[in-house]
Amino acid sequence: MVTQTVDLRSDTVTKPTETMRAAMAAAEVDDDVLGYDPTAFRLETEMAKIMGKEAAVFVPSGTMGNLISVLVHCDIRGSEVILGHNSHIHIYENGGISTIGGVHPRTVKNNNDGTMDLDLIEATIRDPRGELVFPTTRLICLENSHANCGGRCLTVEYTDRVGEIAKKHDLKLHIDGARIFNASVALGVPVDRLVQAADSVSVCLSKGIGAPVGSVIVGSESFITKARRLRKTLGGGMRQVGILCAGALVALHENVAKLEGDHKKAKTLAEGLNQIKGLRVDTETVETNILYVHILEGSTITTEKLYKKLEEYGILTMKESSSSIRIVLHHQISASDVQYTLSCFQKALTGAPEENGHQ
Amino acid sequence: MVTQTVDLRSDTVTKPTETMRAAMAAAEVDDDVLGYDPTAFRLETEMAKIMGKEAAVFVPSGTMGNLISVLVHCDIRGSEVILGHNSHIHIYENGGISTIGGVHPRTVKNNNDGTMDLDLIEATIRDPRGELVFPTTRLICLENSHANCGGRCLTVEYTDRVGEIAKKHDLKLHIDGARIFNASVALGVPVDRLVQAADSVSVCLSKGIGAPVGSVIVGSESFITKARRLRKTLGGGMRQVGILCAGALVALHENVAKLEGDHKKAKTLAEGLNQIKGLRVDTETVETNILYVHILEGSTITTEKLYKKLEEYGILTMKESSSSIRIVLHHQISASDVQYTLSCFQKALTGAPEENGHQ
Amino acid sequence: MVTQTVDLRSDTVTKPTETMRAAMAAAEVDDDVLGYDPTAFRLETEMAKIMGKEAAVFVPSGTMGNLISVLVHCDIRGSEVILGHNSHIHIYENGGISTIGGVHPRTVKNNNDGTMDLDLIEATIRDPRGELVFPTTRLICLENSHANCGGRCLTVEYTDRVGEIAKKHDLKLHIDGARIFNASVALGVPVDRLVQAADSVSVCLSKGIGAPVGSVIVGSESFITKARRLRKTLGGGMRQVGILCAGALVALHENVAKLEGDHKKAKTLAEGLNQIKGLRVDTETVETNILYVHILEGSTITTEKLYKKLEEYGILTMKESSSSIRIVLHHQISASDVQYTLSCFQKALTGAPEENGHQ
Amino acid sequence: MVTQTVDLRSDTVTKPTETMRAAMAAAEVDDDVLGYDPTAFRLETEMAKIMGKEAAVFVPSGTMGNLISVLVHCDIRGSEVILGHNSHIHIYENGGISTIGGVHPRTVKNNNDGTMDLDLIEATIRDPRGELVFPTTRLICLENSHANCGGRCLTVEYTDRVGEIAKKHDLKLHIDGARIFNASVALGVPVDRLVQAADSVSVCLSKGIGAPVGSVIVGSESFITKARRLRKTLGGGMRQVGILCAGALVALHENVAKLEGDHKKAKTLAEGLNQIKGLRVDTETVETNILYVHILEGSTITTEKLYKKLEEYGILTMKESSSSIRIVLHHQISASDVQYTLSCFQKALTGAPEENGHQ
Repeated sequence: MVTQTVDLRSDTVTKPTETMRAAMAAAEVDDDVLGYDPTAFRLETEMAKIMGKEAAVFVPSGTMGNLISVLVHCDIRGSEVILGHNSHIHIYENGGISTIGGVHPRTVKNNNDGTMDLDLIEATIRDPRGELVFPTTRLICLENSHANCGGRCLTVEYTDRVGEIAKKHDLKLHIDGARIFNASVALGVPVDRLVQAADSVSVCLSKGIGAPVGSVIVGSESFITKARRLRKTLGGGMRQVGILCAGALVALHENVAKLEGDHKKAKTLAEGLNQIKGLRVDTETVETNILYVHILEGSTITTEKLYKKLEEYGILTMKESSSSIRIVLHHQISASDVQYTLSCFQKALTGAPEENGHQ
Repeated sequence: MVTQTVDLRSDTVTKPTETMRAAMAAAEVDDDVLGYDPTAFRLETEMAKIMGKEAAVFVPSGTMGNLISVLVHCDIRGSEVILGHNSHIHIYENGGISTIGGVHPRTVKNNNDGTMDLDLIEATIRDPRGELVFPTTRLICLENSHANCGGRCLTVEYTDRVGEIAKKHDLKLHIDGARIFNASVALGVPVDRLVQAADSVSVCLSKGIGAPVGSVIVGSESFITKARRLRKTLGGGMRQVGILCAGALVALHENVAKLEGDHKKAKTLAEGLNQIKGLRVDTETVETNILYVHILEGSTITTEKLYKKLEEYGILTMKESSSSIRIVLHHQISASDVQYTLSCFQKALTGAPEENGHQ
Repeated sequence: MVTQTVDLRSDTVTKPTETMRAAMAAAEVDDDVLGYDPTAFRLETEMAKIMGKEAAVFVPSGTMGNLISVLVHCDIRGSEVILGHNSHIHIYENGGISTIGGVHPRTVKNNNDGTMDLDLIEATIRDPRGELVFPTTRLICLENSHANCGGRCLTVEYTDRVGEIAKKHDLKLHIDGARIFNASVALGVPVDRLVQAADSVSVCLSKGIGAPVGSVIVGSESFITKARRLRKTLGGGMRQVGILCAGALVALHENVAKLEGDHKKAKTLAEGLNQIKGLRVDTETVETNILYVHILEGSTITTEKLYKKLEEYGILTMKESSSSIRIVLHHQISASDVQYTLSCFQKALTGAPEENGHQ
Repeated sequence: MVTQTVDLRSDTVTKPTETMRAAMAAAEVDDDVLGYDPTAFRLETEMAKIMGKEAAVFVPSGTMGNLISVLVHCDIRGSEVILGHNSHIHIYENGGISTIGGVHPRTVKNNNDGTMDLDLIEATIRDPRGELVFPTTRLICLENSHANCGGRCLTVEYTDRVGEIAKKHDLKLHIDGARIFNASVALGVPVDRLVQAADSVSVCLSKGIGAPVGSVIVGSESFITKARRLRKTLGGGMRQVGILCAGALVALHENVAKLEGDHKKAKTLAEGLNQIKGLRVDTETVETNILYVHILEGSTITTEKLYKKLEEYGILTMKESSSSIRIVLHHQISASDVQYTLSCFQKALTGAPEENGHQ
């Protein structure tokens, strides 16, 4: 019998709060395709300011935010983008930049901390002299925090240096900032400073920030003008979209402040899990709200069985690999959820009798 | 001084009603990307049933609905689609089926009533024997009602015959049903019967139906499975999308019944305008909620000035050409709005003194 | 028993002459991908001069010449090209500009003489104010002479006027000049003057000119630099290509002068065929080397049977439609071939006993 | 003063031999687009047989051979290909599979010997359960011999094992066999056996084999039918292409036997260069006709100056990196050329007086 559900699959699973629902119900709206929806306009204006860029546009998802950004920077046929081999854009977005956009990806190895070595980035940029057989490098993409690297953060120094490389070679820099607020909070660096070197950033509102739907892309006026048109091409232009933007504005105002708590809960969970025999969590690398639990060889339970057992207890997680489980914290996970989660892991690993487990 | 605003630019401009807002505020939601949002599931299930198809998927816009439909039917490189030269897909969707999807469009002339001659359609299908130099015809697209042809309706007989041609040549048939409910109501034919011959239909919820955002695509299970994946590629997968779907369900339940009234108001307006010296409306062709006002040569006012003057009166319209204005009715236009609109046109044409006009 | 073969299927069927073969055998060559093949360089330089353009590049086929030209002019995602509904690019090149290049085609009706009405062309150009939902018109394509319109020629005046429209709207003009020499000869206008308004021209060497393989694209230096790179992308860069270019140079030097004769033979054949009861050839429209033979209703023979019968006699033609046959003249068709062809048609139509026919 | 030119830039630089020229001059030809050129037909038939595949098609270049092969195997939108990070297709073909074909590349690290680790290949194949966010893996590409890995060869055992992985996951296997005959000769394995596991192979005729122009793709009948159509789309269909195929047939008959000699010359050169103070050649890895000369730190001459000096001596090479030079042997390099090359390197490194050097 499941006494409570603790959904740790992703920070995308949060439900809209009452204030968000109220704001959505009361939102002032208009046709955002024919002109501007006032609430969308407010969200876009505010987000541009927060991120320190000229302009912004709301899109239905982070995937569309990244797709539009890469395609606008690479709007000429024969473009190449440099990005992490383990980046969300390369691995989890259906290869859309190629299959829909015809952009050629060149990957550089992501280190465990989400960085790519600066000299490798620079070596991967195509020498324009060889242009007869080379696509033209036009863009570098970073991801901060880096989902597939455990939510680790790229520092502002690193980001600035990649920006310098981009400038030196006349390239653009895009940051997949699905969780850029997590990085900003974890690093203690204002978010506009953190993305200062970037020509564009896609910021997700429906991850840790907790809005029901949407991302915002920010960049220069001319970039956003092109982005707005491409959004229409892709079918991302929506009519009375202020409904969603009203929820997003509340999320932005209320939930950024909660991210620090998410990170602390992640750390608590990481440290607790690392104490359990048969599990290992690299607690040092838990910088934000994501953590990986490694099931050690010789453990009393297989990863598959652990995953199922947790599910029976109401703990929802993601299988990351054949020997690890991914956990993501968010503002709707309470301190008591964390403790319950720890107790369920403990129980699953030690094989304590289940019938007592839920009392 | 504008005493009232009558927004006749499009049926996309409606604002969500109180019941919609309440439904959105209370919507049961979940992460529709990780699994299924229950309200999205309800909307999709209901729409599939209404349209008489196996399955459905919610998308952010009609443009994405059409784009996904064409691309799923034409998923093999080297595909060609036959569609009206004046169709929304060909003219108003950024050429996305080619520029994003690499599909080659072959147009057939749209007659004034939105049909394409059946023999022309058939003659345009590529002879497979010539395949070395021909793309492969895979799809025919119809639009019902046909926006650019004044909202006129394709009959079920016509649609069935195009369906027979498609079947005979092993092609698919897609209907851009942005306003398919308008056609159903105007023709007095159940909507599922009207689209029976189609392999897929995209149905807009944010036009006459009045939902704030969204369209639904319907088709076979296998078609929708592919559509769902392509939606993700394009960035149309949304998280707690039930918010929008809740509004759409209310719109579907409450507003389909209002379409007949919209059509009557359009007719009233058309007949009234046609009485005004200097204007002509082909009243016979006003079958649904769209009408074109032609400004006759020798009129007392130019089209441009008429458009501006109407705007001053609070009457918002669309310039269709250098000598015509488009008007679209919807459920938030009252009988009194229609009368006010007629009086404003009258005033603008006869040049009655403006200062009295608004008293 | 076939006493002679008269291959009238196309002007692409000519065999290389002895002088061409000798030139190819002796050609000075080098690796044209690593640098420049000297014979390719000579051909390109000469062709650029003949066409009055800055630069030129050799390509394996007219299809690649057109594909590269359209894609270079439309190198930004979201481009639209205006071209004839009956043009070779739109009908006979696999839709490659869309399926490979993502360019959106907008067709304008080709009149019987290969022209498109100037006001229709201009009306089809997209109003940049509508850019949110419109692709960007970047190119107009003409075809001269126009294959699908019976080899008819666009005058220099017409071409210039299209060029003016292009300039006015900041568009490029490409001419599919697969048979531009035929047009030049038929019109009595120097070929460089005829294409003066064009930003690029693709000129076929393996049609009436009689080279075994290849086309040349001409245009500005910057256009050709981009074309050369795209040629490599498509796989059209060839190593010791001087072999082919040597044959092409001979063809250019020897066979342009023969085109007038081809046109006369076409006229003779047209007039002769038009005298045969049951056939009709619109002799007035035979301007170059192409003619259509219409098999009249009530003729003694069906088109299909006529085609077969001619094949038995050694006369190879192309079925154009269910009631017409296409014939193309070239330099390897002699006056006696023309007479033999006429006699075979006569025989097929009158049903004279075949056993005597070939003696 | 240059007394002789030794062109070691690539094996693509060979000039057609007298017998090739004679064969080209005498070639029986026909229009290969309308039907079949008899000489092209002979070449394709012979090559299919040699490679142990059902069918073959001639293409203008290896780049087009690879492009067509990848695009035919990945003809459905949303396809992904697994290929070496250092492969010719990924690095030197303008990213055409993405920029022209919309195929998403996933790279696996090439080891120094050109292999990719089998477990890495298998781990990179997408789990079909994640299909909502993953492109579909459809193809694995190998390159044998591997140009960028110094012409090293993939063994038949390795190739077979990759073939097994492909089969197990229902993928296709393409081999970029630009220099597959070099691999076959070096490994002592019949070429049809070496590519037995492959669904398609592109074989270059204008590299070591010495034909002036062209490659051939081999595969199943249905694969080649699709390849032929895509060749037309790309503009690779050529008219009297038998001219080129006649040269290619001679090359195939005469020059495969010379490859062993090329490999021996490469070995001799490698060993000789490795004796020169300041240079290092990893002689063990010189398996075919390619070798890299590393200019050691502390050498008497920089790489740039060495490259220039060699050029002055008539020795043409390729700069591979800031500290290495690439040399490729071919049948038009004689034993004396090899000795001359060694002496020039020696001279350049020891700084012996140039005026004596050429006597």
